[in-house]
Amino acid sequence: MTEISASDLTLEEKASLTSGADFWTTKSIDRVGLPSIMMTDGPHGLRKQSGRTDHLGLASSVPATCFPPAVGIGSSFDPEIIERVGAAIGVEAAIEDVAIVLGPGINIKRSPLCGRNFEYFSEDPIVSGILGAASVRGVQSRGVGSSLKHFAANNQEFDRMRASSDVDPRPLHEIYLRGFERVVTDAQPWTVMCSYNRLNGVYTSEDPWLLTQVLRDDWGFDGLVVSDWGAVNDRVAGVAAGLDLEMPSSGGRTDAQLVAAVRAGELAESVLDTAAARAIDLVRKAGRRPAVSGPLDVDAHHALAREAAGRSIVLLKNDGDVLPLGEGQKIAVIGAFATEPRFQGAGSSLINPTRVDGTLDELRAVAGDDVSYAPGFAVAGGAVAASGRSDDDLRDEAVAVASAADVAVVFLGLPAAEESEGFDREHIDLPADQLALLDAVIQANPTTVVVLSNGGVVALPFADRVPAIVETWLLGQAGGGAVADVLYGAVNPSGKLTETVPVRIEDNPSFGNFPGEFGHVRYGEGVLVGYRWYDAKGLEVAYPFGHGLSYTTFSYGEASVSVTADGDIAVTVKVTNTGARDGREVVQVYVAPVRSVVQRAPRELKAFSSVALAAGETRAVELVVRREDLAYWDVRVDRFIVEGGEYTVEVAASSRDIRSSSTVEVEGDAVSLPLTMNSSIGDVVGHPVAGPIVMAALGGVMDGLTGADSSAASMMPNDEAMEKMMASFPIGRLIGFPGVDVTYEQIEQLLAGANAGVLPQS
Amino acid sequence: MTEISASDLTLEEKASLTSGADFWTTKSIDRVGLPSIMMTDGPHGLRKQSGRTDHLGLASSVPATCFPPAVGIGSSFDPEIIERVGAAIGVEAAIEDVAIVLGPGINIKRSPLCGRNFEYFSEDPIVSGILGAASVRGVQSRGVGSSLKHFAANNQEFDRMRASSDVDPRPLHEIYLRGFERVVTDAQPWTVMCSYNRLNGVYTSEDPWLLTQVLRDDWGFDGLVVSDWGAVNDRVAGVAAGLDLEMPSSGGRTDAQLVAAVRAGELAESVLDTAAARAIDLVRKAGRRPAVSGPLDVDAHHALAREAAGRSIVLLKNDGDVLPLGEGQKIAVIGAFATEPRFQGAGSSLINPTRVDGTLDELRAVAGDDVSYAPGFAVAGGAVAASGRSDDDLRDEAVAVASAADVAVVFLGLPAAEESEGFDREHIDLPADQLALLDAVIQANPTTVVVLSNGGVVALPFADRVPAIVETWLLGQAGGGAVADVLYGAVNPSGKLTETVPVRIEDNPSFGNFPGEFGHVRYGEGVLVGYRWYDAKGLEVAYPFGHGLSYTTFSYGEASVSVTADGDIAVTVKVTNTGARDGREVVQVYVAPVRSVVQRAPRELKAFSSVALAAGETRAVELVVRREDLAYWDVRVDRFIVEGGEYTVEVAASSRDIRSSSTVEVEGDAVSLPLTMNSSIGDVVGHPVAGPIVMAALGGVMDGLTGADSSAASMMPNDEAMEKMMASFPIGRLIGFPGVDVTYEQIEQLLAGANAGVLPQS
Repeated sequence: MTEISASDLTLEEKASLTSGADFWTTKSIDRVGLPSIMMTDGPHGLRKQSGRTDHLGLASSVPATCFPPAVGIGSSFDPEIIERVGAAIGVEAAIEDVAIVLGPGINIKRSPLCGRNFEYFSEDPIVSGILGAASVRGVQSRGVGSSLKHFAANNQEFDRMRASSDVDPRPLHEIYLRGFERVVTDAQPWTVMCSYNRLNGVYTSEDPWLLTQVLRDDWGFDGLVVSDWGAVNDRVAGVAAGLDLEMPSSGGRTDAQLVAAVRAGELAESVLDTAAARAIDLVRKAGRRPAVSGPLDVDAHHALAREAAGRSIVLLKNDGDVLPLGEGQKIAVIGAFATEPRFQGAGSSLINPTRVDGTLDELRAVAGDDVSYAPGFAVAGGAVAASGRSDDDLRDEAVAVASAADVAVVFLGLPAAEESEGFDREHIDLPADQLALLDAVIQANPTTVVVLSNGGVVALPFADRVPAIVETWLLGQAGGGAVADVLYGAVNPSGKLTETVPVRIEDNPSFGNFPGEFGHVRYGEGVLVGYRWYDAKGLEVAYPFGHGLSYTTFSYGEASVSVTADGDIAVTVKVTNTGARDGREVVQVYVAPVRSVVQRAPRELKAFSSVALAAGETRAVELVVRREDLAYWDVRVDRFIVEGGEYTVEVAASSRDIRSSSTVEVEGDAVSLPLTMNSSIGDVVGHPVAGPIVMAALGGVMDGLTGADSSAASMMPNDEAMEKMMASFPIGRLIGFPGVDVTYEQIEQLLAGANAGVLPQS
Repeated sequence: MTEISASDLTLEEKASLTSGADFWTTKSIDRVGLPSIMMTDGPHGLRKQSGRTDHLGLASSVPATCFPPAVGIGSSFDPEIIERVGAAIGVEAAIEDVAIVLGPGINIKRSPLCGRNFEYFSEDPIVSGILGAASVRGVQSRGVGSSLKHFAANNQEFDRMRASSDVDPRPLHEIYLRGFERVVTDAQPWTVMCSYNRLNGVYTSEDPWLLTQVLRDDWGFDGLVVSDWGAVNDRVAGVAAGLDLEMPSSGGRTDAQLVAAVRAGELAESVLDTAAARAIDLVRKAGRRPAVSGPLDVDAHHALAREAAGRSIVLLKNDGDVLPLGEGQKIAVIGAFATEPRFQGAGSSLINPTRVDGTLDELRAVAGDDVSYAPGFAVAGGAVAASGRSDDDLRDEAVAVASAADVAVVFLGLPAAEESEGFDREHIDLPADQLALLDAVIQANPTTVVVLSNGGVVALPFADRVPAIVETWLLGQAGGGAVADVLYGAVNPSGKLTETVPVRIEDNPSFGNFPGEFGHVRYGEGVLVGYRWYDAKGLEVAYPFGHGLSYTTFSYGEASVSVTADGDIAVTVKVTNTGARDGREVVQVYVAPVRSVVQRAPRELKAFSSVALAAGETRAVELVVRREDLAYWDVRVDRFIVEGGEYTVEVAASSRDIRSSSTVEVEGDAVSLPLTMNSSIGDVVGHPVAGPIVMAALGGVMDGLTGADSSAASMMPNDEAMEKMMASFPIGRLIGFPGVDVTYEQIEQLLAGANAGVLPQS
């Protein structure tokens, strides 16, 4: 098989190789000994069809370990744990002879309403990129391929297969593509999955700019581009744009279109050769996977799932150190989620778990009879709902149980039907019956701890009325045990928020531009996504990006900041665990230029590190801000540009808990733009080479326009105002204005000479 | 001259006719007896060059009455007073033999920072359109032409001659063009002035879509399009696009380009003929102006300016009826603006006034020795500044004067240098020295009235600490008298806010997208401009759009609302002056559909009426909401569409003071779209004709996908979730999915038949 190349194949064979055999597998070509390979859904576990592969298949998918979805494990801010989970998924795939696991999904959480946010890491591209790369490294370390998805700007479910994400160049490059670039360049995923949506009017499945110019030419991607399932709009246009593999099978219909297009000269056969070669190369890579013998070590993977879940939990609030719970405390566990845990989201990522830990069971395993329980409310489809008990009955029981306990621990969350692949939420509120139940419990016992299960952010109107809030997101199959670990302190919580928890959905930057209408959604907030917006607008938030508490405390020294020989910013800061428990701290580095020629957020996360510190331990934490991550996308030259000048470097425990701030001088990239007749006088004055030459020649003209004697000047309040107005005047439009006694041609000549660095003769 | 037509002219003559002779006049062609006409700046008075016309000219412009700029007079919400002022300006133009007064400016106040906001009416397009039309009617009633400007989407000064306003179709049509359409269709301005900026990448001076398709073909404009002064980028492209007249003169350079382009076949001579014919037609119109003999009745026009200024003042706050001031009250007048009034803005609209009323003088004319005065602070360029007194000295004196008075009246405002044509503001704060002075005065005398002079909105951090605030904007030359009229009650204030006063600039919808960078500004807030945004986001504001108090009070009855035979909404409401003073109330009607297929603001102003009511009087006020003003711009069909269904009709005293709310059923416009393979299943199901046909044929397929037995269904939490997901699926992409046993061709055939209204044979 190693010798097979596209030139060994017939046109029809090449066309057939670039689409699936059925729903999950590629086509084999027996004539040349090319086998088929299988792909399955991911990303937080394996969803492999157990029977025929022409089905979407779930009820019949093989049992697999359900690790915490990205919303959970992302909160660890720790590539190491994510890589270990990825490796475990790779092992499960290898045992099942799966060549590619579809994931990770690293789309930006533009709005809390996106139904699929639980599959994504963050509202920040650096977080998404670093954690996504870790996931790819983990899976691929076992000889199994990843599929980085959904490429690109697929940030909602509403009308997801047609809507055009209309994104300006800067947010597109700085926010929505930056994470993909990071994963591609740092981790070389075997495949990239194009998304369903259109990007600025073009289906991503047939966008040559995206799939070839950006992905391959600019980033150096050398793997295969696979369509999301059903994402192909025009197969021929897709292959021409750089789409290598259509999934699922079109039953031969679109293969025939390719053949016809080549025969008609509408598609160069060499382009199809390239796609087929990539398909062959992918099968070849898959064939090199080291043999792994089953069966799966279910217990070991469950234990890893529990560890990962423990790292996923974010302690939002803990007034008076209500947590961890102590031995001998009487605990009222309230909320149906304690017995009917929500641990993953719906849609293509839904795993058939090898087992599921119940939270109540796990709490009782720790504290036995000290734990009482009342469901408090029903969750649709669950046993409590099936019991038919009334809301009042459930509430009265919960109040009674809460009243009798030292601490009430109330498990609230989003019902499964409220968030899923395929549609978006319309609000971020918890169900009214849950909030009403909580109010009643708080009345009965003010020492109430709220534990949340939700894939997307929820509003927390009760935040001021409870002493402690634990955000567990969706924790996978071992979440019950992990919650018990954290509540009782066996695990010291260390997760931090990868997305802002807003006070109200109206405060979100996409509000008013989400989810769009009639096939278009305008990303009107530009680069001010997530915390960038809340900070720029000075808006209050419920809990800021990067926030998360611990059962211990950490102090930060003054950071030392310097520029390395490579132009990166090296940051060293001493962090001390000042409490009595071992713990982990996610040290964050935010950077912003002091002054900028473009709209910038007040701060952007550029580096982070999850650091384990024993009680009392101090460690010098070293972080590196990559020079390229300082860059903005410059629309004048269509590339990333690092501005020269002073940058503020903040070392922080959250985006709103800055522990140390310093500045560093960064050398800028050169941007050289020729002067034209449409250059403004301000441009000309500011041009380092041409400016002095041209202005010397035009000095008399400018004096005529701005001088105190000028009649033009007299309509402006002062010289400064006149100069501000004139600075925006294109130099070529001066002709015809009073006091201007040079000709158009003279100015043109001046600019030409100045661009060449010489003074023209005339 | 009436017989001259383009065909009488040589190619060179035609080209020459479509650009200016100098800075202010068109070219005459003596050979055929075509005279030159003169244009001058406006819009709130005449700025006519007194000497040579090749100058921008101000110091040397002839004295003219300076009426209140648009920011002031717009607050009247009264087309009648604006039309009278327009007529007066028309008379002054006629006396001076001016054919065209450049104005009105009706650009939307997108950001409070726009330096030229004082020249514009409102953040709302209906207000801008109705008031702009009144201004045109007034000027043109005297045989003088208007020039409606700046067309279009010119909402900032920063980089105004090059920046592209990047605006999506809905905000462009619904917000930024709607007012222009109203003026064009209701008042037929002789000329429209294209703006400096680019619109979605194209210079408006050379945009055939804007200057021809929209302006002429869609709106029926039959006048002349003149460039803003220096707005021509490419003359040939401009003429081809529908630009008729370049100003100022290019000295023949671009005329020669036109001739060459026609000779080279790059520009059809017929296109140039059309432009030349419009230029001839304009001269012909100007020639029909009835003779008006001077000299100007300066006193009569000054009296009108005072009346208009009185109508421009907005009483923002008046706790405890501190105002009006009473006879015998000791008044401390504080603030340099009382003697150095700011009454107009800088730039091309600056008028050389026939006289200027000082505010302090006018107050003393009413209250004589009861009025004491201290400047309190200095304004750059004024007499107080020239005196060299220290801040402390000025403040101490002001405190002493305030302490000895019954009421302190503090005149604060923006210095002239802070707002002007040609540049934008960077913040909305009053100068720190003024705010400090105010604090000191409040300490000395809590009965402090703040009187503001500012062209753009300012932040009011002191609003909770003073009992009364009077926003006078810029009032023109007779503002001093008008302020005295209002403060002492000779005039009962009746102005209302045509723009929201925000708490902070950060709350403004354009914040983060203003003023753009590198030649582009993204109108990212879409249709949610001004109060539409504050209402949609539920944001607190300092004072809402439409707000303004009176010295009397008004009660509203329940409105009666009905749809007329023409489809308009007729609103009748009884309004009663329930106080003891005569006054005026601006009755406002806000409308919104109860449900909409597109993003809508919670309410949009659609009609208003300024009603004079004697003390105790009740009047049935009749207002009409035009059917076309209910429409949203539908990007699927590229036209305005009125949605059918229920609309909320609110009769209000401000956008946040709703007095009566009812609903009315509106018949919708038909939108018929053929089904395609990219129609979603939701589209197909919802299609009135084709839907039932196609779904009947595909029923088995859909059951297979969504039924409880389906393996696809099992990955979704419930049937409703599955249906939501499937609804967004393009019907043509179903092929390849499990349970789908129809072919692509069968679906195509079904759709074709369904679109034709017949069931296909197969």
